[in-house]
Order: sequence, then structure tokens, then C-alpha cells
Amino acid sequence: MKLFPKEINFFEIFDQMASNVRKGTTCMVGLLKDFDRVEDRVQEIYSIEQQGDIYTHDVMKKLNKSFLTPIDREDIHALATRMDDILDRIWAVADRIKIFRITTGRPDALEMARDIDRTVEVIDRAMQELRQKNYEHVQEHCIEINRLENRVDRNYKTALASLFEGETDPILIIKWKDIYEHLESAANCCEDVANSLEAILLKHG
Amino acid sequence: MKLFPKEINFFEIFDQMASNVRKGTTCMVGLLKDFDRVEDRVQEIYSIEQQGDIYTHDVMKKLNKSFLTPIDREDIHALATRMDDILDRIWAVADRIKIFRITTGRPDALEMARDIDRTVEVIDRAMQELRQKNYEHVQEHCIEINRLENRVDRNYKTALASLFEGETDPILIIKWKDIYEHLESAANCCEDVANSLEAILLKHG
Amino acid sequence: MKLFPKEINFFEIFDQMASNVRKGTTCMVGLLKDFDRVEDRVQEIYSIEQQGDIYTHDVMKKLNKSFLTPIDREDIHALATRMDDILDRIWAVADRIKIFRITTGRPDALEMARDIDRTVEVIDRAMQELRQKNYEHVQEHCIEINRLENRVDRNYKTALASLFEGETDPILIIKWKDIYEHLESAANCCEDVANSLEAILLKHG
Repeated sequence: MKLFPKEINFFEIFDQMASNVRKGTTCMVGLLKDFDRVEDRVQEIYSIEQQGDIYTHDVMKKLNKSFLTPIDREDIHALATRMDDILDRIWAVADRIKIFRITTGRPDALEMARDIDRTVEVIDRAMQELRQKNYEHVQEHCIEINRLENRVDRNYKTALASLFEGETDPILIIKWKDIYEHLESAANCCEDVANSLEAILLKHG
Repeated sequence: MKLFPKEINFFEIFDQMASNVRKGTTCMVGLLKDFDRVEDRVQEIYSIEQQGDIYTHDVMKKLNKSFLTPIDREDIHALATRMDDILDRIWAVADRIKIFRITTGRPDALEMARDIDRTVEVIDRAMQELRQKNYEHVQEHCIEINRLENRVDRNYKTALASLFEGETDPILIIKWKDIYEHLESAANCCEDVANSLEAILLKHG
Repeated sequence: MKLFPKEINFFEIFDQMASNVRKGTTCMVGLLKDFDRVEDRVQEIYSIEQQGDIYTHDVMKKLNKSFLTPIDREDIHALATRMDDILDRIWAVADRIKIFRITTGRPDALEMARDIDRTVEVIDRAMQELRQKNYEHVQEHCIEINRLENRVDRNYKTALASLFEGETDPILIIKWKDIYEHLESAANCCEDVANSLEAILLKHG
């Protein structure tokens, strides 16, 4: 008989959430790499984002009913919300590609997407370590998340510089500037997840 | 003799705040529908926004002096701030129309404004239910706020697609993209109010 | 022998942080005024921003190890994070000038930068008053920060209007609109610091 049956559930959902976000970032990498089956891939990312919403609502509902939680309620709330924010941005990137009718990729966007995908892989591992209370490992993963976020940020600047230097069509500049901003925002959301994890470590570490 | 005289005041102010935000959104709908008396209407929305600031400062001042509060201090703070954020965005939309010297409307913007106006109507009702501790009704209104926010979000994407497909003047694209973003941001602020309300329900529901 | 040695450290770091942010805003004013030695000045602001990160990590590390804190942990966390956010925006402004290869300034941008510099001067004084528990003076400084933020906001609108009226090159409009937005965002971050300070006053004032 488990003493705290609820305790396991939250971490299970966080695990599932992180895997789901990873599915989204991997799919985004494929879209920005191949630029084929755009309609299908955007639809796939949309389904993943919808699944993310279901997980988030599940967390909130369980939070509502739980008397005992393994970590503070507001930290569970923040982690779930911020993981969901990553998927929102990924979905925004995919959606913009469809809305703007973009048919050719840019290497800088692919590079940023790949680093975001790597970051979410680290978030996924951090969630597993959190579940097993390996707080030092969580801390290490947070450092790695921040390192990757810095790299995305640098690539974002390189991407902007190259866009304004190489492009003369202002409408194309508007479109890609918007997409780069959403990619950078996705990386910032990953950093927010790391900040949430560090806030938990402050209390439990 | 009232036992908790302070308790009534916060909810009264929240009620007044929500009515005031509603005045702002209704005025914005008029502006985006008729596009006449732009100067006057923008001035009117500015006055409403200023009134909103007075309410917010009033809440903060009363919070400073209250020993007992009917709901947690940080939740009162968050609700007041986020209601004020909606008016900030509404004011930004009106102001942009003046700054950009826009003289002709776009149906998508009007559609978004109307849904934001409807959302604020639901927020107004939710505040009244909160005051009467009808927590289930507050929950239902939060679901409706989220449903309407999703609709504004979809219309935002449709508006962007139509803007980039139909317009060739990049400066006009820059202007309307900015206005659409502020409208979408206003809807997001409504969702933040719903999230604040749900956080209160987590503790009291 | 000091009874609460940790208590002094946080305020010392906040003091150092505020001075460092001030160095950044003063350097930004110089850049936007003279537009010479762009590369050097951007590099200097980058070093200041890196120093800011070191302070922030120092706060977080000390927070981790402190059992007793002079003000609530989350308030220390918020103050440090938001001071760091100002520098992030200042750095973004400088970086954009380099990325966009801008060689000529605009008076509106300089005016905004000067007001942000003045605001950070007030933040610096507020931090010193907080350290000495002169809560009324902190409150007065917060009012002044908000007054200056309102002025930056008004100048931001004037700057936008003048940009769209006077410029015909859409790419130049995109660039300066972006820079103005980052300046305004820096001012908003100053206001967030004031809000953090006021949240502390709510508990200690």
C-alpha cells in the first residue's frame, strides 16, 4: 500500500508532459529542415499542443483535489504552466510558417530549433531526476538548460544580423523576424522551466 | 454593525474595476466599428484607463492598511494588476490607431474587439459571483473566458494570414500587425484574470 | 560580532547591482548620444551585463545557503531578477544598434535613454533606503520611478508617431520600432522593480 499515492501522479504527469514537449520540438526540427508536408506537420504539432493542454488541465484538476502534494502547490502550478508555454511557442512557430506561406527555410532557424530540441531533452531528464529526488543532478541539468538557452540567444542575434544584411524584401524581413522571435521565446520558456526547478531546489535541495 | 467592513470594500472595487474595463472595451468596439471621432474616442479610452489606475492605487492603498483581507493579499494584488493590464492593452490599441494615423478599419480587428468586449462582460459577472462566494459559478465563468480567449486567438491568426495575403504595403502591414498583437495581448490579459480567479478557487473552492 | 551576518550581504549586493545597472544605462546614453566607438561601447555594455549575471547568481547562491533572510526569500529573488531584467533590455538596445548597423541616432531614443538612466538613479537611492529600513523614503522613490516610467512611455509614443510620419523606408522603420520597444521595455522593468519594492513595503512598512 502506497502512503502518498498522489505524490507519484504529479511526477508521472510531468514526465509525460516533458516527453510530449519533446515530441513537439522534434517535429518542429523536421518541419524547419525539410519544409515538406507543411500542412501535415503543422497539424501534428497542433495535436501535440492540444495534448499538452490536456496534461496541464489534468495537473490543475489533481492539484485542486490533492490535500498533500510532494512539492509546493505553486511550484507544481508554475512547472506545468511553463512547460505548456514552451509548446505554445513551438506551435506559434509552426503556425506562422503556415500563415506566412513560407516555402523555403533558413539555416539559422533550423539551428535554433535543434538547440531548443536539445534543451527540452535536458528538461525531460531533469524531470526524471526530480522525481527521484536527485536534486544535485537536477541542478546540473538546470545549468545545461541555461547554457543551451544562451546559445540559442546568440544564434538569434546572428540570425537577425544575417536577415537584415542579406534580405531586401521588407515583408520577408517582417515574417522571419517574427519567427526568430518566437523561437527565441521558446528558449526563454525553457529557461523559465529551469528557474522553476531551481526555485524547488531552494526549498528541497 | 459590520464585523469585517474591509471585506466588502475590495469586492466593491473589483466590481467597479470590471465595469470600468467593460466601458473601455465597449468604447474600443465603437472606435474600430465606426472610425469616426477618432481623437475624441481615444481621449475617452484614455480617461477610462486613468480611472482604472485610480482604482488600482486605491486597492493597493487599502491593502496596505487592511489587517484582515477576505482573500490572500497576493491574490488581491494579482487580480487588481491584471484587470489593469487589460485596460493598458485597450488603451494601447486606441493609441496606436491615433499614432499610426489609421483612417479605415479592418473587419478582423472589429471581430477581435467584440470578443474581448464579451470576455470582459464575463469577467464582470465572475467578479460578482466571487463577491457572493458562488465559487462554482466563478469556475464556469473562467471556462467561458478561456473559450472566448481561444476564439480571439484563432481570429488573430486569421487576421494575420489575411493581412499578409492581401496587403502589399509593408508599412501598413507593420501597423496592423502591431494592432492585432495588442488586441491578442488584451485577450491574454483576460485569460490571466481567469487564472488569478482559478488560483483563488484552489484555496477557497 | 554580528548577529545576522547574512542580513547585510543581500543589501550590499542589491546596492552593487543597482550601481552596475546605472553604469549600463549611463553607457547606453553615451552610445545613443555620440554614436561613435559603437563596437567598443556595445562590448562595454556586454561586460556590465555579464557582471550583472554574476551578481544575480551570487544572490541566488546566498539565498540557497541562508537560513535567515532580512526580507522574504521570494522578494529577494524577485528584486534580483528584475534588476537583472533592466540590464538585459539595455544590452538588447546596444546589441540591436550593432546588429542593425545603425550609424545615426534619433533624438527620441536619446531622450528615452536619459529618462531610463534617471530612473535607475532613483532605484539606486531606493535600494540604499531599503537597506536602512527608511520605508517611507522607499515609497517616495517608487512614486518617482513610476512618474519617470510614465514619461518614457509618453516619449515612446511620440517617438513612434514621428518615426511613422517621417520615415518612408520600411526596413528602417522595423529597426527603430524594435529599438524603441526595447527602451520602453527597459522602463517597464524599472517599474517592475518599483512594484517589487512596494510588495516588500506591504509586508514591512
